[in-house]
Order: sequence, then C-alpha cells, then structure tokens
Amino acid sequence: MRTRAAVAIEAGKPLEIMDVNLEGPKAGEVLVEIKATGICHTDEFTLSGADPEGLFPAILGHEGAGVVLEVGEGVTSLKPGDHVIPLYTPECRQCEYCLNPKTNLCQAIRTTQGQGLMPDGTTRFSMLDGTPILHYMGCSTFANHTVLPEIALAKVNPDAPFDKICYIGCGVTTGIGAVINTAKVEIGSRAIVFGLGGIGLNVIQGLRLAGADQIVGVDLNDSKSQMARRFGMTDFVNPNDVQGDLVAHLVELTGGGADYTFDATGNVNVMRAALESAHKGWGESVIIGVAPAGAEISTRPFQLVTGRVWRGTAFGGARGRTDVPKIVDWYMDGKIEIDPMITHTLSLDEINTGFDLMHRGESIRSVVVY
Amino acid sequence: MRTRAAVAIEAGKPLEIMDVNLEGPKAGEVLVEIKATGICHTDEFTLSGADPEGLFPAILGHEGAGVVLEVGEGVTSLKPGDHVIPLYTPECRQCEYCLNPKTNLCQAIRTTQGQGLMPDGTTRFSMLDGTPILHYMGCSTFANHTVLPEIALAKVNPDAPFDKICYIGCGVTTGIGAVINTAKVEIGSRAIVFGLGGIGLNVIQGLRLAGADQIVGVDLNDSKSQMARRFGMTDFVNPNDVQGDLVAHLVELTGGGADYTFDATGNVNVMRAALESAHKGWGESVIIGVAPAGAEISTRPFQLVTGRVWRGTAFGGARGRTDVPKIVDWYMDGKIEIDPMITHTLSLDEINTGFDLMHRGESIRSVVVY
Ligand SMILES: [Zn+2]
Ligand SMILES: [Zn+2]
Ligand SMILES: [Zn+2]
Ligand SMILES: [Zn+2]
Repeated sequence: MRTRAAVAIEAGKPLEIMDVNLEGPKAGEVLVEIKATGICHTDEFTLSGADPEGLFPAILGHEGAGVVLEVGEGVTSLKPGDHVIPLYTPECRQCEYCLNPKTNLCQAIRTTQGQGLMPDGTTRFSMLDGTPILHYMGCSTFANHTVLPEIALAKVNPDAPFDKICYIGCGVTTGIGAVINTAKVEIGSRAIVFGLGGIGLNVIQGLRLAGADQIVGVDLNDSKSQMARRFGMTDFVNPNDVQGDLVAHLVELTGGGADYTFDATGNVNVMRAALESAHKGWGESVIIGVAPAGAEISTRPFQLVTGRVWRGTAFGGARGRTDVPKIVDWYMDGKIEIDPMITHTLSLDEINTGFDLMHRGESIRSVVVY
Repeated sequence: MRTRAAVAIEAGKPLEIMDVNLEGPKAGEVLVEIKATGICHTDEFTLSGADPEGLFPAILGHEGAGVVLEVGEGVTSLKPGDHVIPLYTPECRQCEYCLNPKTNLCQAIRTTQGQGLMPDGTTRFSMLDGTPILHYMGCSTFANHTVLPEIALAKVNPDAPFDKICYIGCGVTTGIGAVINTAKVEIGSRAIVFGLGGIGLNVIQGLRLAGADQIVGVDLNDSKSQMARRFGMTDFVNPNDVQGDLVAHLVELTGGGADYTFDATGNVNVMRAALESAHKGWGESVIIGVAPAGAEISTRPFQLVTGRVWRGTAFGGARGRTDVPKIVDWYMDGKIEIDPMITHTLSLDEINTGFDLMHRGESIRSVVVY
C-alpha cells in the first residue's frame, strides 16, 4: 500500500512530506493506522544529527496512537479495530528481562530495532523509487500507516481520544513511571524535579498521584512555574535567584534533602545537583534526561556511602503492554491530566513547525493529527 | 583512673604507648575494659594524615570488644560484666534516621563524635600532664579502658572470644552487611567483589551466606586467591591477566553482567568498573571502600538509564545494637568464619608492628590483645 509520511532524509534537514510504499504485516506483525503522534525531543535529537546511532533515511516518530487495520499470521492478542499505542520498549513477556521483575527493558527485538529494521531484518517502508526507508525506535509514527511487532503494541480503551493519549506513548509514561515504577515514591515524600518541560510536568503529576507532600520544581525559566503549579508543584526555585549554592538551598528547603529527586534536563551538572540534593541516609535520585553523547556524571563517592542512591529510568520503568493501558484509564478517569500539555495541534504537512516550536521553547507538546 | 593506651600524638608519627588519665562515665555513658582490638585501614587513614578530618592528639581504634566495668547515671540497657562491642555508628533508636528503615546512619551524637568528643562536648582522656586527648570515631579502642555512650555499645554473647569478635566491630559487619543489608542479595545471584583484602573477604562470605551462585573475586595480587576461595569465591580474575577490557571480560564471565558488584578497594576507577560490570536492567553496585579526599566517581548516565543502580554503604548498613549481636551469634554457630582472617595477634606495645604489617600487605587483620 501507499501512505503519507514525513521522512527524515538526512541529519540536520527538515522532514520531507511524501507518499511512501508500505508492505503489509508479516508473521507476528500488525498494520496500524496512526491517528495522532506527538513530537518528542528524542525525534529532534536524532533528526539534528546529535544522536551517534541515528540512521537515515528513516521515518521518525515514537509517540503515537491509532487503530489496528490488519494483523499478520500468528497474531492473537490484537484484531482489526483495536485501539493501540505503539511501544518503543516492547514487552514480549518471555525474555530474560521481561521475566525479571526489576526491569522493563525487554530485549526480544532490540538488535533489529536499533538498526531501524523489523525483527526479520527488513524494512516495510520504501520510497516510491524503491529505496528502503528505515523504521525508528520500532514505531515510525510520522507515517499515517505503519507496521509494528505485536509485542510493541498496547491495546487501550477505545473511548480515549487519540490526539491526547498519543502522549502516553512516551512523555507521560516516562515522567509518571519514573515516580511510580522506578523511584516507587511513598505517600508523604518530599521531592525535587529539575527541568519543568514536558517530562518534568509529568514527573510532577506522578508525584501528586503518589501522594508526595512537597514537590519542588527547579527551572531557569520563571514562566514554567505557572503550569507546574497546576500539575502539583508546591515550591518553585529558579537557580538564578538563589544566593550561593543551589544544592545547599534545596537541602534547606526540603528539610535536609529530598527523599526523591529527578533530573529531567539531560544536563550532567544538573544530574549531579539532583543526586547531592537528595537526603543523606535514604535519598534517591533518578536520571530521566538523555545526556549528550560522551557526557559523564560525577560525584564524590562519599555521597553514596552516606546513603544516597543513584538510578536511571527508561520509558519510566513501564512494561508497555501492561502499564500503558492503565495510564490511559487513569487519564479517562481524571486521575492524571494531559490536555493542558498539548499546546499545539498540527497537520502532517505542518510537522516541521512542531520542531520549530520546540526549538523556540514555545510548546510543551505539539501533536500531529492525521 | 589511669589506663594504658597507644596515643596518636600527630599525623605521620608512630603511636606512642603511655599511661593516660581516664575520667569515669558521665550520665548515659559506660566504662569498658577493652580486651582486644583490630587495626583497621581507617585508623591508618587517619594516622597517616590523609584524612582531612583527622584530629590529634587522639586515641585511635574503633574495632574492639570488651567488658562493661561501670555504668553512668541513667544507663539501663547495660550492667557491669556485660560483654560489648563498641559501635562507631551508634543506634539511638529515637532519631529521624533510626526511625527510618532505609538507613543505619544514626545522627544522635554525630557532631561531637566528629570532633573527637563525648556527647557533652568534653573528652574523658588526658595526658598525665593534663593535656586533653581526643576520642576517635566515638570508640578509642587503642586504650585498655575507654568510655562510650550507652547507644554506642552492642551487648553480645559472653561466650564469644574477644580476640575474634572484635573484628565484627568494623570489617566483618561492613563486608557481610553490604551484602545483606545494603544490596539485599537474593539466593542464586551472581556477584563480583573488587579487592580481596579483609573487607572483600567478608563480602565474599556474606555472599556465600546469602546463597549467591557465582562469586567472582578481582584482585591484582594472585596470592589473595587462595584465602578468597576458602571463603566462597568461585572465580578469580587478575586484571593483569585479562586481554583487552576488564569490564567486557567480567560481563562475559557473569553471563551478561553481575546482579551485584562491590567495590572494596577505595579506588574510584575500580568503582566505575564495578558499576559498569553490573547487569543491564537490574545490576546494583555498592561502594564500600573509602576514596582519597577529593576523588570523584564518574560514568556515562546511560549506564544508569539502562537500569544499573549505584549505592554505597557505611558499616554495612548495620544497626549496631540490633545487628552486631546477631553477627556474633552467626560466628558462634559457625555460619561465618573469622579465625583465618586474624593473621597476627600482638600486644599493645607491638601495635606499630600491626601498622607495618598492613603497609607491607602481609596481614589480613592484626589484633591487639590487652
Ligand atoms: Zn521481553
Ligand atoms: Zn520520546
Ligand atoms: Zn539514632
Ligand atoms: Zn574500620
């Protein structure tokens, strides 16, 4: 079949909107009509050329929602008409990782996914002249239709609006999951969130959901404060307004350090501040942000020996097929909010505008509706 | 009263054996006759002058065992004749830290202890000319008699031999506790221990006690291998014998990385290797060793984002009054071994020989018997 897609021809260039060929689903695969997709910083990281593992030409996009059109041989858990969210972290429920309750990093299709290929080592997309186009993070939601492995699709509530729940495919789950799955924040905790962009806001609403008593937000931009308060932030700190040492200020503000701190900036110096503003004895710090290639985190080992714990999280520690449908239900039940974070809705033809809005810091999330 | 002690007059000088004055116990304090004391690397760290917080003159030693001679006003949990092990990490059971199950770092007397003083801000020791002598880590077991707060004494089985269980006051508990309390190693785990000195050997026997399936020991000195095997090590790696990258070798040897790794070297480069040889998805690395002042650990945040956890431990995460008596019982029941690690027994007059043996790497533990 043919479908319409925004293709990343090479690093550093705008996406090109074009018709492409899409082969139907092979065994274990599913054809999905994407109804909406968010534009995430990770797409930008790859498109810019900063991602050393970026491959081109490719169809980017990994934060989508859509409807199953057709299933390949052997697919049993999905049928045409099901509403689904693509999962860049799949859940096979059979590999060594899926069977270990400590991790969500299913390895079943990792190698081919990293090469921009389906599990059989081929691509379903091609240019009209036959040139193969690579998949991206196993999802490629910047195409109106895409093919995914069955294990990389979460079946969700069919009443949920695509243009909102697509955000659960990455940002919402990453932020809320970091709180619930990775940090396992307890009721009454004190927490600090560094970076009040889309991920940081979702960490904040995750903390509210988990019953945190104090939720400190840290950002260099005062204008982020209002939205963060709406999602549950109790205290705002702009490092530029702090006299002296930021960590010392945060430790004092939280009565000795926070029980949990979260880095949602990707800046390794901020990651260090996040660790060191965690409470002596038991404070845990979770790295969510993606750092530039080659960047390293550092601290004195004394920080750990005196009881702080340093962790990281990918896709919020969520097991996608199990956890994503629950988060969709939480949204439908009003336990979490998404609508105010979707600041811009665009057509596929306008997708490069979404990247521009991100560069200028004007959007929290732009969503493309097909 | 007068007692005999090895006094650290100043950094970098041998200890001087002399008679000193010791005041009796004040309210909440206990006079203990020390029967035996180990010589630990931390004593050496302070005596050498490398410890920026070292204070002089002081009576060092923090790994002792002895008998209660007299209790001060208000002491209810101990009486003359009780056998005790001094605790450099006390357990008041009332402070914010003691009441938090995630930590053992009781803060009840931290400030005065760090200043070499009893909780009332004074010292019980003085030279015969009246010059005050400071306490050390709240213990000062290099004196035949010493005074400690009640909350810094663990009451132990009176049948246990002082010249062996003194080692439970630091090294044994630090190593075994890192496995049991901090890492919480599960049956069947794979583990790597970096550094096969006294702490490393105790980590190894802690892993055996916890039911680990694979216990890899890493040391630059082949001669450490034999004793480590006796305590449960299953595989030995000398980094000098590894072709190529040590971490890659260890990851392969452990089938993808270890579930738990432990640094018992104090070398920040080894701490990094320990983290990076932990298993993707769930491997945890525990820092036990004390690094030189100012040294920093580093890694790429990707190591944490892909599921590794970086922790540290102090006194093996043990709550001294609760856990130390149990470890003494484990020794008496034959669940753990101590005797082969006590390689040298000395008199107080020979204490500087114990430091020489440590410098030359000839001892695992030297114990002074009064
Ligand atoms: Zn799996
Ligand atoms: Zn994303
Ligand atoms: Zn306490
Ligand atoms: Zn020690």
